[in-house]
Amino acid sequence: MSHQQALTKYIAAFISELVKNGVEDVVVSPGSRSTPMAMVMAEHPDLQVHIHVDERSAAFFALGIAKGTKRPVAILCTSGTAAANYYPAIIEAFYSRVPLLVFTADRPHELRDIGAPQAIDQIQMYGKHVKWFAEMAPPENGPSMINYVRTAAVRAVATAKRNPEGPVHMNFPFREPLIPDLNDPEIFLSSSREQKYMTVSPSILTVDDAQFDTIAQTVSTHNKGMIICGPMDDADLSHKIVELGKALQFPIIADPLSQLRSGCHEQSQIIDAYDAILKSETAKVELQPELIIRFGAMPVSKPLLLFMKQYPETRQLIVDGGGGFRDPSLLSTDMIYCDEKQFCEELILRANTFAIKENGYLTLWQDVNEVAKKEMVKVLEIEQLNEGKIFAQLGQLLPEESTIFVGNSMPIRDLDSFYFINNKSMRILGNRGANGIDGTISTALGVAMYTQPLYLIVGDLTFFHDLNGLIVSKLYHIPITIIVINNNGGGIFSFLPQSEHPKHFELLFGTPLNIDFSHSVTMFGGDYIKVEDWQQFSEAIATETSHLKVIEVMTNRENNVKEHRNLWESVSREIDKRIKDEE
Amino acid sequence: MSHQQALTKYIAAFISELVKNGVEDVVVSPGSRSTPMAMVMAEHPDLQVHIHVDERSAAFFALGIAKGTKRPVAILCTSGTAAANYYPAIIEAFYSRVPLLVFTADRPHELRDIGAPQAIDQIQMYGKHVKWFAEMAPPENGPSMINYVRTAAVRAVATAKRNPEGPVHMNFPFREPLIPDLNDPEIFLSSSREQKYMTVSPSILTVDDAQFDTIAQTVSTHNKGMIICGPMDDADLSHKIVELGKALQFPIIADPLSQLRSGCHEQSQIIDAYDAILKSETAKVELQPELIIRFGAMPVSKPLLLFMKQYPETRQLIVDGGGGFRDPSLLSTDMIYCDEKQFCEELILRANTFAIKENGYLTLWQDVNEVAKKEMVKVLEIEQLNEGKIFAQLGQLLPEESTIFVGNSMPIRDLDSFYFINNKSMRILGNRGANGIDGTISTALGVAMYTQPLYLIVGDLTFFHDLNGLIVSKLYHIPITIIVINNNGGGIFSFLPQSEHPKHFELLFGTPLNIDFSHSVTMFGGDYIKVEDWQQFSEAIATETSHLKVIEVMTNRENNVKEHRNLWESVSREIDKRIKDEE
Repeated sequence: MSHQQALTKYIAAFISELVKNGVEDVVVSPGSRSTPMAMVMAEHPDLQVHIHVDERSAAFFALGIAKGTKRPVAILCTSGTAAANYYPAIIEAFYSRVPLLVFTADRPHELRDIGAPQAIDQIQMYGKHVKWFAEMAPPENGPSMINYVRTAAVRAVATAKRNPEGPVHMNFPFREPLIPDLNDPEIFLSSSREQKYMTVSPSILTVDDAQFDTIAQTVSTHNKGMIICGPMDDADLSHKIVELGKALQFPIIADPLSQLRSGCHEQSQIIDAYDAILKSETAKVELQPELIIRFGAMPVSKPLLLFMKQYPETRQLIVDGGGGFRDPSLLSTDMIYCDEKQFCEELILRANTFAIKENGYLTLWQDVNEVAKKEMVKVLEIEQLNEGKIFAQLGQLLPEESTIFVGNSMPIRDLDSFYFINNKSMRILGNRGANGIDGTISTALGVAMYTQPLYLIVGDLTFFHDLNGLIVSKLYHIPITIIVINNNGGGIFSFLPQSEHPKHFELLFGTPLNIDFSHSVTMFGGDYIKVEDWQQFSEAIATETSHLKVIEVMTNRENNVKEHRNLWESVSREIDKRIKDEE
Repeated sequence: MSHQQALTKYIAAFISELVKNGVEDVVVSPGSRSTPMAMVMAEHPDLQVHIHVDERSAAFFALGIAKGTKRPVAILCTSGTAAANYYPAIIEAFYSRVPLLVFTADRPHELRDIGAPQAIDQIQMYGKHVKWFAEMAPPENGPSMINYVRTAAVRAVATAKRNPEGPVHMNFPFREPLIPDLNDPEIFLSSSREQKYMTVSPSILTVDDAQFDTIAQTVSTHNKGMIICGPMDDADLSHKIVELGKALQFPIIADPLSQLRSGCHEQSQIIDAYDAILKSETAKVELQPELIIRFGAMPVSKPLLLFMKQYPETRQLIVDGGGGFRDPSLLSTDMIYCDEKQFCEELILRANTFAIKENGYLTLWQDVNEVAKKEMVKVLEIEQLNEGKIFAQLGQLLPEESTIFVGNSMPIRDLDSFYFINNKSMRILGNRGANGIDGTISTALGVAMYTQPLYLIVGDLTFFHDLNGLIVSKLYHIPITIIVINNNGGGIFSFLPQSEHPKHFELLFGTPLNIDFSHSVTMFGGDYIKVEDWQQFSEAIATETSHLKVIEVMTNRENNVKEHRNLWESVSREIDKRIKDEE
């Protein structure tokens, strides 16, 4: 058998096995060394090949597809710095637990570390940010090689999908000639084990009944309990948590990415204004908890973190079916490695045996939440364009079944402050693994690939950082509406202590770019709308689009800080009043 | 002493020591965790702070400043994926031996690996692509900490500058509050050792006299010797190599980045058409060498590599003052770790004692070079816009003291083919460490920061890959002329075997973007000129510019391949004729 045939069989067996294990999409960046795998991928009838020239954006685009579809997604690039461009998205995938299959083509061993072109050290080049790394054998002929490569494919997908989900990296050394033999119509047929080569059991972490009893005992013997939900994206789990909250009569602090602020579930115990509430010292004192149950990653709210830190004696249970260690507060008392849905079910079962004592804690939270929201919704009365109001209107303006992708830095925080509970069926996503501003457009477009309609909300620096990402909207006609909040620079820094040190502030933190994005939007075949007032904003949102639509809202960093602070002050004032009235 | 004062003194001592050791520029990307270092950097009167929002481009921009000035350049970013965006430029710096000081801010130890925002694993996150990694101590007070941090600064610069030059990475954990105390006007004054804290000797690699005698003996006992010069950027060395060539009567094969094709040096022995020549089988036979002396990195020419591989018995000396192993041919017989200039001097000294035998080898090379160039310059007669002719005209069109930065993929190869010897004082640079198409605009702008005039020549995919890089031209008013050769896709693949497999070719390799770059150029405040003929091209080049100027030349991938092949065929034909005539 020729080199070419051995190469083809090896790769075809691998690709075929990937598809059998649920891989439907691959994002390929053009290159020479990756030629054999790219060509075999393009040949597979059930694999969707997306092309993206910029590997940084390509990897984020794949991340978005994986987030949106919850399927493992593959990326392929050539050797050299191409692979290094994948790094930011891989890190995000690792920390946000998204299954990404990273395939890098490499020079064969005899061409490494000797100054050959596009040859870098690709062995474990993503450090500890992948769940598994495999340096693959150079393609050779023989049944044992086919078994090897099929096993590797099964293992790669299973590892990426196993909880906690995450990226895996496989490095493939390919020798020239690099052209596969695509004349054989049966390259994807397996001579043995025609279906999957093997399966890996989809296991979950759990604890035994005695443990559940102990946990239930702990929960039942503490008053003033609360549930805190960080970013998560599982509708079933959201419902279970609501049930658990009801069974325990606990308020549920719902991060905007918890999927608990929108939807048809019972919402009376959901607290959505905690970020504003917990800026009030009075509220922090009155709301002191005795027990906290946390689900998901850490919520974005800093006041919430400071509130938790104020009471280190609080019993704090963290439930993590992924077996991680997500507690930047360093205050957890019980780390419970257990599938979250099972945890809820077991606890609900046992809660029926508790005598739930009405202690007024839930009512107090509900009460101050109402007071706070009454003030926060006043943002809707501001006539001039304003950052908070954009988020306050989303629930009303966006259609049912929308997905919102929210940028980091200010937008996620404004969403936290101003996106109030509503009954629409919305899904809200963001890159909260490493919280970077990079790759946001591409991630959102990846989600939009199979999930419509999609609304992305970003600041101008985040929009700028991934401008190249817009190309796939043009090339693949992916509809997306992007709201760019343009305050000409880094708005978040105006909320940080450096804003009080004017000397180097604009240079280092303000960083105005002074660019007119309409040019770029036009280049990428999009519609650009700069809105001047709220009427235009609503209309722009409502306009149907079959491709890229960018709505730019110009705001002012200084006014923005003032408006936020005014609202928070009035929330604190009203809460103080209410609490004094009750005493 | 307060946390704030200790933080400030620690960082100020570090920055001050960097400046004393020759660091003049730092490229800062805005972020929160890096606040104390960014503010202290901005405060230092002798440190130029450049701001760049996109960390990928920022690192390449710094790489360019370092390439242009030959000074070590620092980059600073916040924690998280920001740091991952540095990876491509760091890899390029490592393989192209450029001194880059990479400073990443990090969360302190107690906030790592517990799900804190923007906290990733930054320990050795660039793998083996840095020369030195240091996880720095969290800033504390006391003279021993100041001595520590000053030593670390000296060591970082010395390590980056020591041959082979390259990147170093220092990770700085900073605790809140992050604002330094800039009220003390004396923060940069040292209480002891007012100048540098210490020095590290600037050593060179060398061999002893007996070794030089042996080498000279080897060289003198082989006929048909040639010198091959790859990428290098040291005018003194170029002159020494010319002298060595003269002393030995060896032809000098000069890669376009060897700095040997332009300048006031003696050029009669410089061979510039070897890439076309060595496509002729006859020439490859007639030109068989017995000895090769190689300087610099591996040249770009594939025919040259194949020529070397055809004669594995050739004695091949590689001279590398950086002590690397840059031999992808795997044919070297003598790896000589010795400062290149010293090597030339010692060999010239000894060559005077040789009886140089006129064996016709140099003359043959000169002869076929003349024949080949007579054909290659016919590219100048092509009337329609054409890729080769752009490069053939550069020597004539660009002014004295120009710097050319050349993109990878096709442009570097066309420069190799069509940039002929000339007497102008030109410097030609490219990213030939890992040969990526990423970061090219930013690297060129980094060079242009202090080196004018600067001409960048890139293909459309390379231009697209680093569009964001254009922002610094706008923000810092850096003049640059960019020639974009737009063949709407990946032109190089049309020269590779996959071009004969049309089925997936356009999808995977052609990758047309179909975008009009004029929009983007306008957005970044540049002048955009699309040229329709050669007259317009010359005029566009000649136009003075004080900022960004982009000249777009539309070409056709298919025609391009045909025109190249026609020229190469006529070169081979003429060489065959000439050699037969002589026999």
